[in-house]
Amino acid sequence: MGKVFDAVIVGGGINGSSIAFHLAKRGYKVAVLEKEKIAGKASGAAAGILGAQTELDEDGPLFRMACKSRSMYRSLIPELEDLSQVHIGYQNKGMYKVAADKDQELELRRLIESQRKAGEQAEWLPIDELINREPSVSSQLLGAMYIPNDGQVQAYELSLAFAKASRALGAEIYEYASVSELILKDEKVHGVATSQGEFLAESVIVASGAWSREVLEKSGLSLPIIPVKGECLSVIAEKPLVQGTIFSHGCYIVPKQSGRVVVGATVKANSFDEKVTLGGISSLMEKARNLIPDIANTEWERAWTGIRPQSADGQPFLGEHPVYKGLYIAAGHFRNGILLAPATGELMADILEGKTVQANPFSLSRLDKLVHT
Amino acid sequence: MGKVFDAVIVGGGINGSSIAFHLAKRGYKVAVLEKEKIAGKASGAAAGILGAQTELDEDGPLFRMACKSRSMYRSLIPELEDLSQVHIGYQNKGMYKVAADKDQELELRRLIESQRKAGEQAEWLPIDELINREPSVSSQLLGAMYIPNDGQVQAYELSLAFAKASRALGAEIYEYASVSELILKDEKVHGVATSQGEFLAESVIVASGAWSREVLEKSGLSLPIIPVKGECLSVIAEKPLVQGTIFSHGCYIVPKQSGRVVVGATVKANSFDEKVTLGGISSLMEKARNLIPDIANTEWERAWTGIRPQSADGQPFLGEHPVYKGLYIAAGHFRNGILLAPATGELMADILEGKTVQANPFSLSRLDKLVHT
Amino acid sequence: MGKVFDAVIVGGGINGSSIAFHLAKRGYKVAVLEKEKIAGKASGAAAGILGAQTELDEDGPLFRMACKSRSMYRSLIPELEDLSQVHIGYQNKGMYKVAADKDQELELRRLIESQRKAGEQAEWLPIDELINREPSVSSQLLGAMYIPNDGQVQAYELSLAFAKASRALGAEIYEYASVSELILKDEKVHGVATSQGEFLAESVIVASGAWSREVLEKSGLSLPIIPVKGECLSVIAEKPLVQGTIFSHGCYIVPKQSGRVVVGATVKANSFDEKVTLGGISSLMEKARNLIPDIANTEWERAWTGIRPQSADGQPFLGEHPVYKGLYIAAGHFRNGILLAPATGELMADILEGKTVQANPFSLSRLDKLVHT
Amino acid sequence: MGKVFDAVIVGGGINGSSIAFHLAKRGYKVAVLEKEKIAGKASGAAAGILGAQTELDEDGPLFRMACKSRSMYRSLIPELEDLSQVHIGYQNKGMYKVAADKDQELELRRLIESQRKAGEQAEWLPIDELINREPSVSSQLLGAMYIPNDGQVQAYELSLAFAKASRALGAEIYEYASVSELILKDEKVHGVATSQGEFLAESVIVASGAWSREVLEKSGLSLPIIPVKGECLSVIAEKPLVQGTIFSHGCYIVPKQSGRVVVGATVKANSFDEKVTLGGISSLMEKARNLIPDIANTEWERAWTGIRPQSADGQPFLGEHPVYKGLYIAAGHFRNGILLAPATGELMADILEGKTVQANPFSLSRLDKLVHT
Repeated sequence: MGKVFDAVIVGGGINGSSIAFHLAKRGYKVAVLEKEKIAGKASGAAAGILGAQTELDEDGPLFRMACKSRSMYRSLIPELEDLSQVHIGYQNKGMYKVAADKDQELELRRLIESQRKAGEQAEWLPIDELINREPSVSSQLLGAMYIPNDGQVQAYELSLAFAKASRALGAEIYEYASVSELILKDEKVHGVATSQGEFLAESVIVASGAWSREVLEKSGLSLPIIPVKGECLSVIAEKPLVQGTIFSHGCYIVPKQSGRVVVGATVKANSFDEKVTLGGISSLMEKARNLIPDIANTEWERAWTGIRPQSADGQPFLGEHPVYKGLYIAAGHFRNGILLAPATGELMADILEGKTVQANPFSLSRLDKLVHT
Repeated sequence: MGKVFDAVIVGGGINGSSIAFHLAKRGYKVAVLEKEKIAGKASGAAAGILGAQTELDEDGPLFRMACKSRSMYRSLIPELEDLSQVHIGYQNKGMYKVAADKDQELELRRLIESQRKAGEQAEWLPIDELINREPSVSSQLLGAMYIPNDGQVQAYELSLAFAKASRALGAEIYEYASVSELILKDEKVHGVATSQGEFLAESVIVASGAWSREVLEKSGLSLPIIPVKGECLSVIAEKPLVQGTIFSHGCYIVPKQSGRVVVGATVKANSFDEKVTLGGISSLMEKARNLIPDIANTEWERAWTGIRPQSADGQPFLGEHPVYKGLYIAAGHFRNGILLAPATGELMADILEGKTVQANPFSLSRLDKLVHT
Repeated sequence: MGKVFDAVIVGGGINGSSIAFHLAKRGYKVAVLEKEKIAGKASGAAAGILGAQTELDEDGPLFRMACKSRSMYRSLIPELEDLSQVHIGYQNKGMYKVAADKDQELELRRLIESQRKAGEQAEWLPIDELINREPSVSSQLLGAMYIPNDGQVQAYELSLAFAKASRALGAEIYEYASVSELILKDEKVHGVATSQGEFLAESVIVASGAWSREVLEKSGLSLPIIPVKGECLSVIAEKPLVQGTIFSHGCYIVPKQSGRVVVGATVKANSFDEKVTLGGISSLMEKARNLIPDIANTEWERAWTGIRPQSADGQPFLGEHPVYKGLYIAAGHFRNGILLAPATGELMADILEGKTVQANPFSLSRLDKLVHT
Repeated sequence: MGKVFDAVIVGGGINGSSIAFHLAKRGYKVAVLEKEKIAGKASGAAAGILGAQTELDEDGPLFRMACKSRSMYRSLIPELEDLSQVHIGYQNKGMYKVAADKDQELELRRLIESQRKAGEQAEWLPIDELINREPSVSSQLLGAMYIPNDGQVQAYELSLAFAKASRALGAEIYEYASVSELILKDEKVHGVATSQGEFLAESVIVASGAWSREVLEKSGLSLPIIPVKGECLSVIAEKPLVQGTIFSHGCYIVPKQSGRVVVGATVKANSFDEKVTLGGISSLMEKARNLIPDIANTEWERAWTGIRPQSADGQPFLGEHPVYKGLYIAAGHFRNGILLAPATGELMADILEGKTVQANPFSLSRLDKLVHT
């Protein structure tokens, strides 16, 4: 027979859980189907930076969505912590995007101009002022673009909080529920078949990160998303190493609670391989030592991997399937899944309710163009 | 384009690796595709008992295959250790299948008779003699069926050894290669599509344990195999606790090297859930304490889960797909995957080469009967 | 030469760190010497209950100190979190001390009377009302004494927070600094010799928990403290299992954040052995299942051990050495080290400053009596 | 009262256990007292190279003792494995001590000459021949000194095997037994006092590695031994990376079973600190990548620390206490504790039995000279 829901979400990462949270809040009966454990893949592996202005350089729809999503966290965090009994570890002490040479400085100065024009705060700190604020930073740097509003969270805890808050609002969460089939008929979705039986719903949202392509192949769609492996590591600092996040080309250093510092991330395209390599973490460490020499004295904790979903044009896919009504897709957030989760959840709930304002720049209507390129 | 092989094996558990080993030895160009890590699921989780006479009570094709497979290990182990540089920890100190009450004793005495008639060794040990040999065993028991030839191995190491030995013989092994599609045309298999591209071969063997059903659904076949969750735990004994394996209804206690003792296993049908539960391990511990009270003083090590594939009639499926030529299946070994691996590898290689003797009792021709029941 | 301080504290557990915190706040130059890692022994192993009324039945000096210490946490927690950047996870949802039979009920009712007379809140909840508040509790129980003010914390994080807050206030913390000698001369202490050289101070406070006896033997004093081993375990509950802490004879169940539930603790006197035994955790699990049957469905996380210091008369030793001036002792808190840390820190700082009010019921003047008994 | 033994050994590392083994074999009633867990410190942390010719350059008493000890392993290993049921993983595939520049080559060529004169095998391999044998080695090197007889073991397993074999021969092993006092009277030792009571014996052997100084201070002796911290790491190679051990200045790469490769070790004098630092392992990785570039592709496993005991003159102390009869010392093996264990065990047993031949170059009679220098 199968269980019946208003909406079934395939994927228990942060975006799946945020969608569940937003739908549950609006009164929908929701099920989240996760093939392994909640937040067990990229969402739990992320360093947790909310780098709206750090990760997304240029003004545009994604930049604006990112800034909006970042600001949604301020009220969301206490709400999620209260509902879920999870401590998210939200910190709002800014980011420093550093310049190691003159070219990088010029580029950052240009970015500051452009982001200010877009209404966001950013300023250039020459090296003396940078060191004044963050004394551990290498004096070899030229300075940094300072972004006061790019905060950070504990990504695993935040993802878990979305899931537990959804459950507190009535959503049902099924772990180890692997989707073997999308139930499609008459150009409509009717539910999914899984290792735990059928889940029937008129709305199915695929939010499976790098595995979305695999899920959607069951609908005949080859979503242009590739898996991009990223390795991270953490250390424990006796005394505070930095207050804000230090961000450079290929390396960011993120101070967490209890002295923990997370360093991310390598980038290896087209790989589902979750093994941490010696080469990966040794290159990360070298970069980190160049940014903050004293990190050499911190205590090694551990290393891990996340598989991030990169779309062909760098923008997430957020919209309805080109063929099947009721089948929605929310995937391709690459390195910004944590940052974009609130706005993604809200947007997808709006789309399901038919509320969306005119043009959705992330819709799947651009697929044709992408594939033909 | 895709890589081209003589045979592609879907699944890097012990049976997939044993088939690869046997085919590589016969000169085939083989690829093993594992969706995560080699021996990462049930094969690596097994307690490693080679319980031909303990697990399989009655004479019959499976009993004979099990006894044969067990005896194959004697020459296989040194060969695998030499090729793979893995220490398998093979021990051949017998098993004791104990009786806790008179009914169990009668049943065991009956089994001894029947297995002797089948040409295998077994004898009844009254409690005094049992305690004489294994002084830690509870004096509340009535005695045990002693089976001198049921040995044991380190299951993860053995599985790894099969894979590494295959590689030493020329096989290629791909981890994190998830099969998204079976390439089928004109009632023949032509290869598989995976997250790492296409692998083309005229022979494809599905040896994916509990996940075989999911893989084969891509061929329209609903193989009647269910996942059966089993929890195990290990402890460290300062002094040797037992020499042989102690086996009872619902609990076996297996002495490994360096003082490690493995206790297995709970049985929960229809579950892919890999979480160890408090209830599962507390019931295992209680059973173990009833068998060997002194196990209470051993040091806790860890607990884990394996998902075992149980077929509808308790026999593995070893043979060709009912529709697609070249597509083979080797799945459904339930709790005897480790034990049956050598014979499975040999039989599947024979089948591929068209060598099989007349009747194969494990062929898929029985599917109709199973489904209709 | 040696480093020079106002006060040197031997032991980086919660009480050593709380003393450091209180002294640093009062302007003292303090060093904490920890032989391994901060909060690495009993302090980090504790379940973190602040059981002033649960653990300490009868009115008396220790009961009053415990209630005071408990109330000090309300203002201390935000101060520590702010200074240390550690999230302590303080929860204040009460404890339920349950009765499994009529005798236990009578005893609890008597306690409620007596504690109310002492000015503390407590009330009897019949089983229906208990289940109304905590639906997972076993209906086999008769009811519970409800104590609204006995809260709980994450013990490791709290201990770390005391240490990091001390450092933020100027204290120096030395890990892997093992004290080989107390520098004693003319009936006064002058410092300690350690594996990291000499630390000179006119005040030395031994706060080494179960290892205090070993440290003090260097001064010729055999402090009557024995090590009492306690094993704990934790599980992860999908849905909230309980809101408050459930406390019974020999087992308490403490809900933490993110679904974690801690179960403690076995009691084995005269043991420094840190091994978790199968017997220990299997008996804890059985007790926990009797209190909350549904705990059987939670996910196993891990088990660990703490070595708690029990004094001959059950009261801590808080005062000056009977022979050597300037040598202080703060040890013997048994299962209440977390609870008593604020009051211990304050009292020891007062004693060092000569501030103490008249009678200190925990002084070492009672040693003669204890040894002669 | 205390338990009575023929000999009590303080320290359950590899040398303490080897002494216990040799004494137990000769019929002595022996107790081993370990303050934490058997092989829990440097012995269990070692990379396990038996580098008689690699670590000890020059001919002399220690070189000869090392070569003898190395050769004793051939018969010892099977005996220990049989008695202990521990798999030691002994490999005898030689070592390559590489030259990165012309000076190093000249030095190695000189060593080869000198060691050959001392009767040991060694030869120079130019880079082509080295790469021929070990194709993964960097072609930037100039070549290597090849030492066919320097094998290797799994150090933890070997240490455990010595302890378990001792127990099988009648020795008693006490873990978590910390020595608080040496019982000394009339210039003789009579036993030790510990956290588990008194252990009486007319012979007490201190084999406590870097902690020997602390133990012996209870006898008024300041043994000139310092703790030297060493960090190691391990990776998992899919395919065999090297057959023999690759050894250079500051880095050795040791292939173990199942694809594991151990990389050692940093050197930090005067540190008991067991924390692994980011700086330590990142420098090790860099060195390893210079020796074997492909190690970058191996899978990260873990990192750990050992605290090794370095004596003032680089030679171990093996002999009787200068003051107290019956009190023996076997400490200061620095990086050669694993290598020297068999010869140490035999020599100490000989010394106890009064068997030693004339001059013992490692006796404590040299202490005066060392201290005055």
